[in-house]
Amino acid sequence: MNRSPSPAELAQYLLAPRSVAIVGQSNDAGKTAGRPLKYLRQAGYAGRLYPINPARDTVLGERAWPSLAALPEVPEHVYVVAPTEPSIEAVAEAGRLGVKVATLLADGFAEAGPQGDARVAKLRAICAETGIRVVGPSSLGVVDLRSKALITANAAFDETELPAGRIFAASHSGSMIGALLSRGKARGIGFAGLVSVGNEVDLSLGEICALTLDDPGIDGYMLFLETMRNTAALRHFAMAASERGKPILAYKLGRSAAARELAVTHTGALAGEDDIADAFLAACGIARAETLEGLLEGLPLLQRMPAANATRRMAVGVVTTTGGGATTAIDPLAMRGITIASPSADTLTRLKAAGIDIKPARLVDLTLTGTRYDVMKAALDILTTAPEFDLILCVVGSSARFYPELAVRPIVDSAGKPIAAYLVPDAPQALAMLSRAGVPNFRTPEACADAIAAALRRRKPVAPPPQRDLSTGVATGRATSFPPPLRGRDREGGPTDSESGTTPLPTPPPQGGREQAEFAATAVPSNGSQEHRGAHLIDELAAYELLGKRGLTCAPSLALDADLTTAPALPFAYPVVVKALSAQLAHKSDAGGVVLNVADGAALVAACQRIRANVAAHGHDIARVLVQPMISGVGEVLIGYRVDPDVGPLLMVAMGGTFTEIYRDRSLRLAPVDLATAREMIAEVRGLATLKGFRGKPAGDLDALAQAIVALSQLADDALVFEAEINPLIVKTEGVVAVDAVVWLA
Amino acid sequence: MNRSPSPAELAQYLLAPRSVAIVGQSNDAGKTAGRPLKYLRQAGYAGRLYPINPARDTVLGERAWPSLAALPEVPEHVYVVAPTEPSIEAVAEAGRLGVKVATLLADGFAEAGPQGDARVAKLRAICAETGIRVVGPSSLGVVDLRSKALITANAAFDETELPAGRIFAASHSGSMIGALLSRGKARGIGFAGLVSVGNEVDLSLGEICALTLDDPGIDGYMLFLETMRNTAALRHFAMAASERGKPILAYKLGRSAAARELAVTHTGALAGEDDIADAFLAACGIARAETLEGLLEGLPLLQRMPAANATRRMAVGVVTTTGGGATTAIDPLAMRGITIASPSADTLTRLKAAGIDIKPARLVDLTLTGTRYDVMKAALDILTTAPEFDLILCVVGSSARFYPELAVRPIVDSAGKPIAAYLVPDAPQALAMLSRAGVPNFRTPEACADAIAAALRRRKPVAPPPQRDLSTGVATGRATSFPPPLRGRDREGGPTDSESGTTPLPTPPPQGGREQAEFAATAVPSNGSQEHRGAHLIDELAAYELLGKRGLTCAPSLALDADLTTAPALPFAYPVVVKALSAQLAHKSDAGGVVLNVADGAALVAACQRIRANVAAHGHDIARVLVQPMISGVGEVLIGYRVDPDVGPLLMVAMGGTFTEIYRDRSLRLAPVDLATAREMIAEVRGLATLKGFRGKPAGDLDALAQAIVALSQLADDALVFEAEINPLIVKTEGVVAVDAVVWLA
Repeated sequence: MNRSPSPAELAQYLLAPRSVAIVGQSNDAGKTAGRPLKYLRQAGYAGRLYPINPARDTVLGERAWPSLAALPEVPEHVYVVAPTEPSIEAVAEAGRLGVKVATLLADGFAEAGPQGDARVAKLRAICAETGIRVVGPSSLGVVDLRSKALITANAAFDETELPAGRIFAASHSGSMIGALLSRGKARGIGFAGLVSVGNEVDLSLGEICALTLDDPGIDGYMLFLETMRNTAALRHFAMAASERGKPILAYKLGRSAAARELAVTHTGALAGEDDIADAFLAACGIARAETLEGLLEGLPLLQRMPAANATRRMAVGVVTTTGGGATTAIDPLAMRGITIASPSADTLTRLKAAGIDIKPARLVDLTLTGTRYDVMKAALDILTTAPEFDLILCVVGSSARFYPELAVRPIVDSAGKPIAAYLVPDAPQALAMLSRAGVPNFRTPEACADAIAAALRRRKPVAPPPQRDLSTGVATGRATSFPPPLRGRDREGGPTDSESGTTPLPTPPPQGGREQAEFAATAVPSNGSQEHRGAHLIDELAAYELLGKRGLTCAPSLALDADLTTAPALPFAYPVVVKALSAQLAHKSDAGGVVLNVADGAALVAACQRIRANVAAHGHDIARVLVQPMISGVGEVLIGYRVDPDVGPLLMVAMGGTFTEIYRDRSLRLAPVDLATAREMIAEVRGLATLKGFRGKPAGDLDALAQAIVALSQLADDALVFEAEINPLIVKTEGVVAVDAVVWLA
Repeated sequence: MNRSPSPAELAQYLLAPRSVAIVGQSNDAGKTAGRPLKYLRQAGYAGRLYPINPARDTVLGERAWPSLAALPEVPEHVYVVAPTEPSIEAVAEAGRLGVKVATLLADGFAEAGPQGDARVAKLRAICAETGIRVVGPSSLGVVDLRSKALITANAAFDETELPAGRIFAASHSGSMIGALLSRGKARGIGFAGLVSVGNEVDLSLGEICALTLDDPGIDGYMLFLETMRNTAALRHFAMAASERGKPILAYKLGRSAAARELAVTHTGALAGEDDIADAFLAACGIARAETLEGLLEGLPLLQRMPAANATRRMAVGVVTTTGGGATTAIDPLAMRGITIASPSADTLTRLKAAGIDIKPARLVDLTLTGTRYDVMKAALDILTTAPEFDLILCVVGSSARFYPELAVRPIVDSAGKPIAAYLVPDAPQALAMLSRAGVPNFRTPEACADAIAAALRRRKPVAPPPQRDLSTGVATGRATSFPPPLRGRDREGGPTDSESGTTPLPTPPPQGGREQAEFAATAVPSNGSQEHRGAHLIDELAAYELLGKRGLTCAPSLALDADLTTAPALPFAYPVVVKALSAQLAHKSDAGGVVLNVADGAALVAACQRIRANVAAHGHDIARVLVQPMISGVGEVLIGYRVDPDVGPLLMVAMGGTFTEIYRDRSLRLAPVDLATAREMIAEVRGLATLKGFRGKPAGDLDALAQAIVALSQLADDALVFEAEINPLIVKTEGVVAVDAVVWLA
C-alpha cells in the first residue's frame, strides 16, 4: 500500500495532475470513450497524456499505449472509460502501480443489484489494499478550467471557449456538469472546476469539495444532489466552508415522490424524505435552490447576504419602475414565505424629501416618478440604509433593454450594497453590466425569488452533537470510513407509529405538495415489529423517567398490578386513563391496551381486566398497568426525536392525528435545537395556529412548548436513545404535559 | 354620436389604422411621450402619422400639428400621451371629431381614489356620447407587427428587428408587452400583435382579443392578467376562441396575498381569491401558467394537446438520455400533480424487440443504450403509439449542445406526434431546430413542467348558466355593458360564515401556499350582518324545501312552537337536535340557538326554553324551533354555492371545520358542474381521503356525495338563489344527508 497523499496532494492529483492516462480511449471521437483525449487536447492541457488502447497503435492520431504498466511513468490521474469488468481490472492495476487517483466512467455498480454490490465491494477492497482513491463509478469526469484538465466524457465540453471562473460545482449527475457549464457560459457565469461524483463508492462529494476548501481561486460551491449520501462528509465540508466564508448552494432532486423513486433506479441510492434532506441542508448552512436557474444564478447573492440566525425574520424591500413586472417576482417570493416589507414612515419621509413622493404600499413603485437615473439612485441610497429591510430587490422594466443608463446604471453605482436585480425584458447587456459590478442579478422572476428565498432562509451551520459515532457519524479517520450504509428494506419494518391515529416520525414514503393521488396508497404506516435496527423499547414509566430527567413535565403516573381486584387510593382524582405497561408493546391502542375516562375504582378494576384480556388476544401477557389522571388543555402536539439513518439525530414537531398526516403538517430539524429554532418550528406547523388564541379560544403556553422541544432535542447527546416520541404533549394555558411517550434505546 | 363600427372595422382601426395621431408627442425621444413617433417611423409604419404638440412647430424633425381639429383628416386611431387632465380633453375632442379609437397612456384613473373615479366616469360619458372606443387609461399601447403599427411608448420596442409571428398577447401590465416581445425574440417566439389594455375603462382585454378571433394570422393568445375584471367578456372570448381551435394561455398575478394587495394599489382593481380566478380560467378553457417562461413557451404545446375532459387523468411518459437531467423536469411535474406513467409490459416488449432493453421504471432511460439516432427514433416511435401515454416528454442531455443529430434530430423527425422536448444543456441551435419543426420545446425544466401541467389540466370551456344577468353577467349589447362593478368594501360585511367553526365560502382574504405568518391575522372571517348585497335569508325549513326540490336529501325536520310546554310525539327517535328556526338568524350557533343530543321530551322542552333565552339575549325573538334526529356517518363535508361578484355562480367542496380553514383544503369550480367534475372536486379535497376507507374505517358513499354536489351546483339556473351552504352534509356508508343549510335569496 502506498503512502496516503495529503489533502493538498490529493487535490492536485485530482484537479491539476501533471500526467493523465485514459484507459479505454477510443479512436472514434464521436463515441463517449473517444471524447476525453479530444477534449483535453482541445483545451490545451499542458501535462503528459497517455491514451491506453491495447487493440490499437494509435488513437485520434496519437500513440496508443497497451497498458498502464507499459507507460514510462506512473500517471497522477487515470480516467477509466472502459466497460465495467475491464474497468475494475484497470483500477486494480492502477492501484498496484501506485496511481493516486482513478476516475471511473463505467456503470453496473450500486444501481445493478447483487452483482453490482459485489463489484462495489471489489472496488472498495482495491482502494483499501492499494491506497488508490476513486471518483465514481458512473463519473462523467473531473474538470479544472484553470489547469485545463478536462478529464471528462461529457459532450458539452467539446468547445474551446470555456467559462472559467471562481465557482466549484459538484454533481451526482454527470449530465448536469455539462448543463451548468453551458448554461453558465450563456449567463456569464464561470467555473474553477466541475466534478461528476458518480456513485461515490470511495471519494464522496463532500470529501472532493473539502479538498478544494483552501483553493484561493474558489469562492463558492454549487451542488447538484440526487440523494442524501455520505452526509457526515458533506456536513464536515459545509462547516469548514462556512468558516472560510465560502457559501454553498445546492439543488436537490426528490421533492416529489416520483423523483425519489427514480433516484433509486438511477443511482441505486434510496432517497429519504425530502423534508429530512431539507432539514439536513439547513443545519449544514447549505442554501437550497428549488429551480435550476436559481442554482445557477444564486451564488453572488449568498456571497453578499450573511447567513441569518433564527431569532429574526429577514425582510425584502422592493423598488421598481414597473408594478406588474415587480409583482411577477413578489408573487413567487411571497409563496415561499418571504416577507415583503413596506417602507416605514421614516423611509417614506426620506423618499419624499428626495423628491420621491409615493403612495404608502409594500412596493416602492417609481412608475409615476419616471424612469430616471437620479430618482432610482436616490431611492436605492435611502432604501439600502433603511433598517426595515435586509435586502432591496430592484426590478427594472422595459428601459433596461436599450436604456440601461436610466435605471440599471444606478444599481451598478450602488454595488456593494445589499441589492438584487431582476430585469423584466430580455436585457443581456444590462445583466452583464450588473454581473461585472458584482450585483446579484436574475434573468427570470422565478429564479430571482428562488435565490432570494434560499439566501434569506440560510442559517449558520449547527455543529453536530458531540461524541456520536453513528453509521452516518463523525469522521473517525480517512474518508472511506463514510461508506453509504446499506439501506433500503431495513428501514421499513420499524416501529414508526406509536399509537394508532398518530403521525409517526417520517419513515414510510408519504407524499409532499400536490401529489394527492399517490398519497392514499402510501400514507398508512406499517405496524412495525418490536425490533428496529437493534433498538429496544422501554416501558412508559421508564420513558417518563428518562424524559423527566431532561426537564420534560410528564403526567402523574402510577403503576399497578394488572391483576388487582380492588382499586387502591390514587394520588390524583378520577376520571383516569388506564394503559397496559409493558416494554413489549409499542402499539398499546392497537392491542386494546388503553381505556380512557375511567370513572371510579370499580371501573378501574374492570379496565384492568379488559386490558389484560385484549392484549392477551394479541399474544401479550402484561403484569402491570399505568394509571394517569385525564388531562386536557388548549390543544395537543406531537414531538418526536429519532436517529435517522441518513442524517442522524432528527426532531419533529407536528399536530398529531389523521389530518396532520394528510396535510403533511410538520416541522423537522436536526437535533439538538435552540429555543429560537424551537419557536421557528412551532411557527412552521400551520395547525398550531389553533394554539394562539384561535377564534376566541384561550392561547396555549407556546413558551413551555418551545422549551419542551428544546429538552427533547437534547437527547441527541445521549447515544443510547434511538427514538423518543411524546404523543400527545398536552399544551395548557400554563405549561405542557406529556401524557404518552414511547422511547426506543439503541 | 357616430355609427358604431363593426368588430372588423374596430379591429382595423385598432391594429391596422391607416392614420394615427399622437397627442402630446414630445420632441425628446428619450422621454416616454417622445417614443411613439420614433418607434412608428423606425418600424416603417406606412400609414399617415400626425404628431400633435401645440407648443412646437416640429417634433423629432417632423411637422407638429397644434390640435386634432387642425388635422387634414380624422385619424383612425389616436394615441394620447399627454398628462391626465389634458388627456381627457383630447379624448373628448377626438370623440367629437369622429375618431373611432383612442389609446390612453395617462394614469390617475381607477387607481387614484375618488378623483380618479370621477375621471373614469367622465371618460365613460365621453365614450357613451360620442361612440369613441378607448384602450386604457394606463395603456403603454397597441402594437401590430404586421401593419407595423407600433402605437406604443414601451421602451423595449426601440429596435428594428422585431419578432413577427402568429401569437396575440394582451396584458394588464404595460411593461409586460415589452418583456414578452423581447424575451420572445431571444427564444425565437414571434407575435402578430401585443396590447397593453391598462385599466379597461372601456374596451376590456376580452373584447380586444375577441376582435382578432377571425384574424387568420393569429393562432393563439398569451394573456398577462393582474386581476379578474370584465370576466363575462373574457369568458365570451374564451368560448369563441375554443370554437376556433385557438388556445389561450394565461399568467395571472396574485397567487400570494402580497401580490393581490399590490394589485389594488397598482391598478385600482381588487383581486379576488386566487383559487376563484383559477376556477374561472379553468371553466373558460384558458390554460394557466405559473411561470413567466411557461407563459412564453407554452402555446405550441397547447396547440398540439387537445383540451381534456374530467373523466380521465392524462399521463406523461418520459424518455431521456440522462436520468438526472430528466428528473429535474419530473420533479416539478409531479409536484404539480401530473402523472408520470411507466411504460406498460407491452411497451417494454416492443422496446426490447427494437433492441432497447431497459429496466422497468417510470423513466425510459436510454443512458445505457447509448445516445444514438436510431435508438431514440425507435423509442419515440414506440412510445408515441403506446396507449398509456398522452404525451411523451423527451429530455436530451449534453449531446444536444454540439451533437443534435444524435438525440434531437429524431425528435424533429417525429414532428407531428405528441412530444415535448427539454434540453438539459444550453443548446439554442437545437431548440431552434425543434421550434422550426413545430415541436414544443423548453429552455428550463421548470417552464417545461409548468407548460405541460397547464396543457394537461386544460378542459374544454363550460358554457355559463343560461338566463343570468349578473353584474358580471352575459353581454347584453355593446361591450361597455361590462364596467367593473365598484367592488371593495361592499364585499366584506356579508354573511360569509353560516355557523361558527365552519369554513365560509371564500370572501375574506386568507392566504394560500406557505404564507403562514400572514395567515393568522386574516383567517378569522367577520361575522356578517343579516343583509348582503340586497340578499335575504330564508329559514332552515324553507332552505330544505328548496334543496329538496333539487334532489338533495335533507334530515327529517319538524317545526314546533318555540314556547311549547310539553313535547309532542316525534316522527323520529331521540336523541334529537333542537335549533332556532328563523329567517333573521344566520348564525344560530353563535347566538346559542342550537342544542345537540336532546335525550327526551322533557329535555326538548328545556332546550326550547334555553334557545329562546339565548337568542333573546342576542336581540332576537323566535316563534319556532326545528327538531331533527341526530344523524352520524363516516364523515362530514361542506358544500356551498355562491354567486361571486367577479366570476358568477361558484361551487365549493371542503371538509368544514377549523383545520380545513387552516389548510385551505377546498375545491372550487364555476357552477353548474357535471358528475365527472364533482368527482374531480372530491379527489382534490385532501381531507376527503378519510372517507375512502381510511385506516380501516368504512368508506363513505362518494357517489352520493358527487350527486349532491351536482344537484347543489344546478342552483346556478335559479337567478333568485344568491348563496346556499350545506354544512355539514353527513356522508354515510349509503347516501348523504344535509343536516344544516343556510340559503340567501337575491
